[in-house]
Amino acid sequence: MSILIKNSENLGDVYVEGNEIESVGKGASSKSRRKTDHVIDAKGKAVLPGLVNTHTHAAMTLLRGYGDDMLLHDWLTTKIWPAEEKLKPEHIYWGTRLAALEMIKSGTTCFNDMYFFMEETAKAVRDSGLRAVLGYGFLDLFKEEKREKEIKETETFVKFVEGFGLERVKAAVAPHAVYTVSKEGLEWCKEFADEKGLLLHIHLSETRKENEDCVDANGKRPVPYLDNIGFLGENVIAAHCVWVTKGEVRTLAERGVKVSHNPTSNMKLATGGVMPYKEMHEAGVVIGLGTDGAASNNNLDMFEEMKVAALLQKAHRWDPTVLPAGEAWQMATINGAKALGINTGEVKPGILADLILVDLHRPEMTPNHNLVSNLVYSASGSVVTHTICDGQLLMDERVVEGEDKILEKSERIAKELIGNS
Amino acid sequence: MSILIKNSENLGDVYVEGNEIESVGKGASSKSRRKTDHVIDAKGKAVLPGLVNTHTHAAMTLLRGYGDDMLLHDWLTTKIWPAEEKLKPEHIYWGTRLAALEMIKSGTTCFNDMYFFMEETAKAVRDSGLRAVLGYGFLDLFKEEKREKEIKETETFVKFVEGFGLERVKAAVAPHAVYTVSKEGLEWCKEFADEKGLLLHIHLSETRKENEDCVDANGKRPVPYLDNIGFLGENVIAAHCVWVTKGEVRTLAERGVKVSHNPTSNMKLATGGVMPYKEMHEAGVVIGLGTDGAASNNNLDMFEEMKVAALLQKAHRWDPTVLPAGEAWQMATINGAKALGINTGEVKPGILADLILVDLHRPEMTPNHNLVSNLVYSASGSVVTHTICDGQLLMDERVVEGEDKILEKSERIAKELIGNS
Repeated sequence: MSILIKNSENLGDVYVEGNEIESVGKGASSKSRRKTDHVIDAKGKAVLPGLVNTHTHAAMTLLRGYGDDMLLHDWLTTKIWPAEEKLKPEHIYWGTRLAALEMIKSGTTCFNDMYFFMEETAKAVRDSGLRAVLGYGFLDLFKEEKREKEIKETETFVKFVEGFGLERVKAAVAPHAVYTVSKEGLEWCKEFADEKGLLLHIHLSETRKENEDCVDANGKRPVPYLDNIGFLGENVIAAHCVWVTKGEVRTLAERGVKVSHNPTSNMKLATGGVMPYKEMHEAGVVIGLGTDGAASNNNLDMFEEMKVAALLQKAHRWDPTVLPAGEAWQMATINGAKALGINTGEVKPGILADLILVDLHRPEMTPNHNLVSNLVYSASGSVVTHTICDGQLLMDERVVEGEDKILEKSERIAKELIGNS
Repeated sequence: MSILIKNSENLGDVYVEGNEIESVGKGASSKSRRKTDHVIDAKGKAVLPGLVNTHTHAAMTLLRGYGDDMLLHDWLTTKIWPAEEKLKPEHIYWGTRLAALEMIKSGTTCFNDMYFFMEETAKAVRDSGLRAVLGYGFLDLFKEEKREKEIKETETFVKFVEGFGLERVKAAVAPHAVYTVSKEGLEWCKEFADEKGLLLHIHLSETRKENEDCVDANGKRPVPYLDNIGFLGENVIAAHCVWVTKGEVRTLAERGVKVSHNPTSNMKLATGGVMPYKEMHEAGVVIGLGTDGAASNNNLDMFEEMKVAALLQKAHRWDPTVLPAGEAWQMATINGAKALGINTGEVKPGILADLILVDLHRPEMTPNHNLVSNLVYSASGSVVTHTICDGQLLMDERVVEGEDKILEKSERIAKELIGNS
């Protein structure tokens, strides 16, 4: 498969061969003398790296709008957990297909996921064409028997994903959080991930209660607790990190931990506090951006997430210079790629061909004084016209193959799920 | 002109005759036996009231993305004011056409505006088909000579708009703020607005500095200062109201002042503090929603504004139950209509025909467990397929007449403007 993107407004031509970007700029067009499978006219459009969503629970799209504006405990106990107990593999497959469709249509080409029935998530990612890092949500609830079950589930899932033999679908190890996984469980996850060369995906310091409970249970706050048991390292991607001290920021930086900032979810659930972006950025922490699941956002639009991130940090610090547009754009692209250890996030030769085209001929993108500003502060995901992942064209002029079936199936299955819960 | 909207998912049929909604529901379709100018098939769509943007500076679209992430004083003195000094009538006309295009494409049918060269704004509104309340930004800078000039400008502009004879284009009186208009200027505006039966549109308590300076100059904070000179009343719409005390909230409620909340602009400019939504709502103040100008937002998407408003209030109060989706929707529709004194904001017989159709067959609108939640938390303005204002179809399946010309002209004129500043 080869794709020639011609005449883009920002980079001229881009030539994709196989799953890599082969050339960028004027020279790229000469490649078209060879047989090109697909030529895209990008006049009036910008070619950009696909966005990277560093923390989500894709199948939760089925619970979009099912419970809002509720206290966290009420929301979990009366809405989310009862619904989740009814989840069957079929729900996870179609919920993830729906999420993948939404991501493709809003310019996200890679995501980092943690949930249940992850074999179904993996199949849905395989079938959608997206790139993803997938972890089975390991929750032993401090019980040995459950821990053995979670260990087996994790091992089985990793083998299942390896069996795909697809570079774009990777397994991770995903201990849920310090309040749901025992010390022994966390230690096993760490050892297994290191041994297999996998990422460790965990929720960390999302709420104040999590910190207080961790001090009660372990005599330490979550970050020092995890550091003390040797869990923290360069393969850890920690979601949220809202309730962390300056000293803990230094620990995260020293250990090379990657952080996923989820501003919309934090604000909507009113978890209190704000992720200390400025301190983390200055300490050199790689900070990516995540939407979290659709039940607490309620969409997967990374364009919106960039803007909310910038607005939240500015408002919180009373300082409009914090998290400028360029840094928000980096969070959603190159930083996300670094956090997940994938070779994407830029448009240059030798990089994996995860690309999007953005229509500049729209009122909210006019005038184009500053493209990055328009992308971060004015665009929504609907500005994306083409999405390419791993060298494959997944959306062509906003058309995605199989869209109608995915919408109809997921609408029906979501209604059945909620009707039963 | 008559329009029949058939088979909408939420309300069935809606029949529009002239500039009013004549009937809603099953019976509406029988009207189609008469000659109907336009029939819209709304299967898979919801029919909803057009959104009302209660505070903006439309022509500032030309400055979109020109200055971001800067301290307020630097932004104004090095970017906005030098650019504004170069503004010519032509800029205002095309900047407003661009804004109107963006609003039509994102479901806003009415807006409240304050800026310069307002005759050009009025012409652009007339030509775009939107509904608007327009005020010449009265700034006397505490000089008598300038005040006389501003009085004449205001009188001339009101006459100009009256000369249109269009119900959908109304004049307002718009003293800029307490720090730019003298007591005599404010008193003249109040008297003139009351005499003519017009709205008074003012910026109020946007920044902490405004409060401090007002105390230094007048011995009172802005709200009691305005109340003391008899300015506050039911025809006042006050934008921002971020830095107000609980006592001032009571004053605003008692005087019947309407408030325009502009969360994105407040957050992006990091004006500090947060508009006390909960206190105002409980006191019974009519609170609408506004985007402010595109230079400080940087778009005019009221769907995004609803979400940012809800997120900000929840995060600020550490309480997810504050500003639930239903109230955010009301702010953007019926409350905006009440604030501007126009008979829109709902879909029922006898109301002005300002309507939008929203496509439900999209991933971010699926599943449809709760339409209002999806509109507030998941949608962007791109879900709108049809926009009707004053009984006229302004957007049909996302096509707006003259779009290309508006985009090209405004892009060129914006580049010329910035090149010269």
